[in-house]
Amino acid sequence: MRNFTRSEVKNASIAQLKALSDALREEIFRTVSACGGHLSSNLGTVELTVALHRVFEFPEDKLIFDVGHQCYTHKLLSGRAPLFHTLRKEGGISGFPKREESEYDCYGTGHAGTAISAALGIAKARDLQNEKFSVIALIGDGSFQNGLIYEALNSLGVLNTNVLIVLNDNGMSISPTVGCTHDVLEKLKTEKTLADAKLFERFGLTYRGVVNGNDFEELLPALEEAKSLLEKGSVLLHVATKKGQGYPFSENAPTETHGFSPKPASQKEYAAALGEELSALAAQDRRIAAVTAAMTDSLGLRSFFESYPDRAFDVGICEEHACVLAAALAAGGMKPYYAIYSTFLQRAFDEIIHDVCGQNLPVTFLIDRAGITGPDGETHQGIFDLSYLSLIPNLTVAVPKDIGELRAMVRMSAEFSSPLAIRYPRMGEEGEICPIEIGKFDILHSTTSDIIVYAAGETCVRIAHEVLKRAQAEGFSFTLVNARFIKPLDTQFVTGRKEKYIVTLEDNVLSGGLGDGIARLMRESESTVISFGYRDTFIPHGEIPSLAKKYGLDPDEIFDCLRELHARG
Amino acid sequence: MRNFTRSEVKNASIAQLKALSDALREEIFRTVSACGGHLSSNLGTVELTVALHRVFEFPEDKLIFDVGHQCYTHKLLSGRAPLFHTLRKEGGISGFPKREESEYDCYGTGHAGTAISAALGIAKARDLQNEKFSVIALIGDGSFQNGLIYEALNSLGVLNTNVLIVLNDNGMSISPTVGCTHDVLEKLKTEKTLADAKLFERFGLTYRGVVNGNDFEELLPALEEAKSLLEKGSVLLHVATKKGQGYPFSENAPTETHGFSPKPASQKEYAAALGEELSALAAQDRRIAAVTAAMTDSLGLRSFFESYPDRAFDVGICEEHACVLAAALAAGGMKPYYAIYSTFLQRAFDEIIHDVCGQNLPVTFLIDRAGITGPDGETHQGIFDLSYLSLIPNLTVAVPKDIGELRAMVRMSAEFSSPLAIRYPRMGEEGEICPIEIGKFDILHSTTSDIIVYAAGETCVRIAHEVLKRAQAEGFSFTLVNARFIKPLDTQFVTGRKEKYIVTLEDNVLSGGLGDGIARLMRESESTVISFGYRDTFIPHGEIPSLAKKYGLDPDEIFDCLRELHARG
Repeated sequence: MRNFTRSEVKNASIAQLKALSDALREEIFRTVSACGGHLSSNLGTVELTVALHRVFEFPEDKLIFDVGHQCYTHKLLSGRAPLFHTLRKEGGISGFPKREESEYDCYGTGHAGTAISAALGIAKARDLQNEKFSVIALIGDGSFQNGLIYEALNSLGVLNTNVLIVLNDNGMSISPTVGCTHDVLEKLKTEKTLADAKLFERFGLTYRGVVNGNDFEELLPALEEAKSLLEKGSVLLHVATKKGQGYPFSENAPTETHGFSPKPASQKEYAAALGEELSALAAQDRRIAAVTAAMTDSLGLRSFFESYPDRAFDVGICEEHACVLAAALAAGGMKPYYAIYSTFLQRAFDEIIHDVCGQNLPVTFLIDRAGITGPDGETHQGIFDLSYLSLIPNLTVAVPKDIGELRAMVRMSAEFSSPLAIRYPRMGEEGEICPIEIGKFDILHSTTSDIIVYAAGETCVRIAHEVLKRAQAEGFSFTLVNARFIKPLDTQFVTGRKEKYIVTLEDNVLSGGLGDGIARLMRESESTVISFGYRDTFIPHGEIPSLAKKYGLDPDEIFDCLRELHARG
Repeated sequence: MRNFTRSEVKNASIAQLKALSDALREEIFRTVSACGGHLSSNLGTVELTVALHRVFEFPEDKLIFDVGHQCYTHKLLSGRAPLFHTLRKEGGISGFPKREESEYDCYGTGHAGTAISAALGIAKARDLQNEKFSVIALIGDGSFQNGLIYEALNSLGVLNTNVLIVLNDNGMSISPTVGCTHDVLEKLKTEKTLADAKLFERFGLTYRGVVNGNDFEELLPALEEAKSLLEKGSVLLHVATKKGQGYPFSENAPTETHGFSPKPASQKEYAAALGEELSALAAQDRRIAAVTAAMTDSLGLRSFFESYPDRAFDVGICEEHACVLAAALAAGGMKPYYAIYSTFLQRAFDEIIHDVCGQNLPVTFLIDRAGITGPDGETHQGIFDLSYLSLIPNLTVAVPKDIGELRAMVRMSAEFSSPLAIRYPRMGEEGEICPIEIGKFDILHSTTSDIIVYAAGETCVRIAHEVLKRAQAEGFSFTLVNARFIKPLDTQFVTGRKEKYIVTLEDNVLSGGLGDGIARLMRESESTVISFGYRDTFIPHGEIPSLAKKYGLDPDEIFDCLRELHARG
């Protein structure tokens, strides 16, 4: 797409702005169709973003996105249109705001609820340095349920600075927004008693709205007014937009068109199997419950939610509350499963320790999108979980080598009475379902070689098999073990082995993961432990295999290492 | 103190309840004076807790405390009075609610904001299992600012269950409650427009209050009414209490009398030195700012807050918001320092990754109360931080060996332009101030021995010195190194050493800490690495040296190990 100049947006007529919006919408649709990405949220906010660029002066003024699912128009309008076809591709434009990508991206995001806190910090820094510019936080109603928002609003009135909060209300998180906060937001304008209470005013905000966020005739004057109000204090502008706006199929199916991410046709989704297994358990055991934070379909739980609505809890984008709720359901005698993406579980780290494991309650964490997740980049890679889970007492951490093993682990979990985490990537092979014993490794290939390889999870087991085939072709071999429990490790197995060389593979950072654990067990042995895993760096967006290779799990490098060990003898 | 029977509280006259309250208050005062603990919050809630025991049937009904700073009366009334003199002592009564201690403690706490989520979980489990009892969450107005509360309230209306929330409003966190939430709470009753808006009703709660929580004549009927309202739905009862009630010196100085914890007279507080150094930096550099989450005095920051109020941000019990605010202040050109206790920083784990380190922003984390903290028990030990920080890219983790080294590190931090964490215990020795180079270890005792000991932090360096003295008395020695950077490790130093035996000491769990890191560097060497640190378990309350010895840092065991290594040769 051609580039846009600032003056173009500034000088356009309303008709021209509409035409520009149509062109932007077409470009977003075309690019997302090709590259994957977030569609409906971006389609819904085209006019709103164009209007913000018309009224404010970027990059002097600062625009902070919450989550960032709606930043494409901003990217297109800020010099990145010619590169937009590289969206989410390795080395290309990121799907999220990113400071190092552009001076127009003043604050990076990817997880929900940070925008108001970030806006306050940037505004205070401005004030303390006697600078003058506007700070705008653009946040969706789904994010508005997150606890961080409340913590930021609590501060706002006392921080004595000025920010503009644009609340983009489309009634949706990824799924429809659940919870009472949204009901209150909806009624702010229509109910007199609520309006009279001047709720946001109590938090130091002048409230304006609701404005149609897909209509320039309403939007532009509202933003101009907000800009002038900003001279005197903070403002909340409540804007209603239509998720998927302009594309009827997206308007009508905003959840399904929230994000697109091409799937390898040859593989299956772990989530689908998870959903089947959990529903089957629930049919047998009335204690089984499912807890999620604003996701059901992508975690495979649609059918569970439909079949067992009284035992299915989607609490909105509230990862911490979901975790405490699960802990308390367990304390009350239920058997809860908390399904979530690896990267978002980081939000509940303290609650996993304090509420679940500290009380040794039988909550099972079903951790999807573990390892490198690819095109969403730094904020969405699930490369820390093996480490941050392994350090927690009372927690068992399981890593299935394929979908069949996930099924076996879920079945096993029904009788397990302590905290359990099962982590897996999005896509994989079906595989067989064999019974699993807690804490026991499984030998996948046995030899008399002096080399043993421990691989955790499907990505690593696949690489190990690939390397094994090459080794055999070159006339050597190694014992291959499925290290399916990272915690507890199979101490008896590991310490009982006599191989001179131990190689570990994990799709996780090296600090505190499988390699460190096995090395700790073998410290006083004669064996040498060599670990492959991700380097100590944030991993940007790109294709999973390419990123894995580049950041620490390179089959060639692993093969070379094994060949060298074989030669060493 | 003698035990109380349920019927005693049930059948007492108001006059007798008052006499009972006086006796309880005296017992609490006497015990806290002797054992340390939380005073003013417990003194303030005596009548409220007695009234709850009068109106509800425990343990059939469930009482969930938020944080648990106010649970002493509940413990005294639920069979634990005869053991109350063992409060916070090893093997004695915990200072916090604890499931394994009593069936009256249905949910354990220690960190803020969990009570409503926990109450909802227990209530839903009750409903799903067709049981009948009342579930009560008792929460202070300080905790009410925490984001978890908002997430739980957002869920409450849609979860379709019944809980009673008793909001204990004393206008205080540990320090006076800051923020707009509290202002709104204060005005709920007095302002007609706010009352008319029926705010809590929007969240599915019937609101009652404000009731004088130190007066049985008001309290008992209010609780009876709440109990009957609970048949039909959830209730929020807003109660005003006086922190420190009954003891004028505590009423007048509720912050100072919030908690007592005897200090070893021979040692100094790290916090005091931290405060001095940070104030000195701030005088030189206008970019220096301090961020805290509801603590200033105990972190040594009172003087900073008084001298630089425009650059001092206490955001209430909002650890996550504090972290994002710090990140954004840094993004805006400031140089923020976020001071917090180790255990509470767990709440901001995702924000450390996503906001600070993911953007490589120069936020310095000042992490107090690291290692075993003693009498507060499981929920307050700071034994995970070296592990959960070491796994994060872009973060430098420093551990001073004494207060002088903390001073040197803070001075060094002023010129450091990446994320930095400095973690230290509460008490220590003053020590000298020598310039520090990032990532460089320091040899404390050099020998030609085949043994090298790496010790991280004051607790471990002290143990190492003690063991060295004993070794020398027995005619052997070892090289002792101050491992003052856990990340990055001093790779050049470690890999350059030729000792056959490497021993590491850290006051942290073993998974992912110093020992694992050094072992990872030495994997292909001939050296054997032996690590001492805390075992993979939650550590209960007790005295610091005794717990350290029991849970993994036993000087005798370390000495025996070294002697054995020396003998091995």
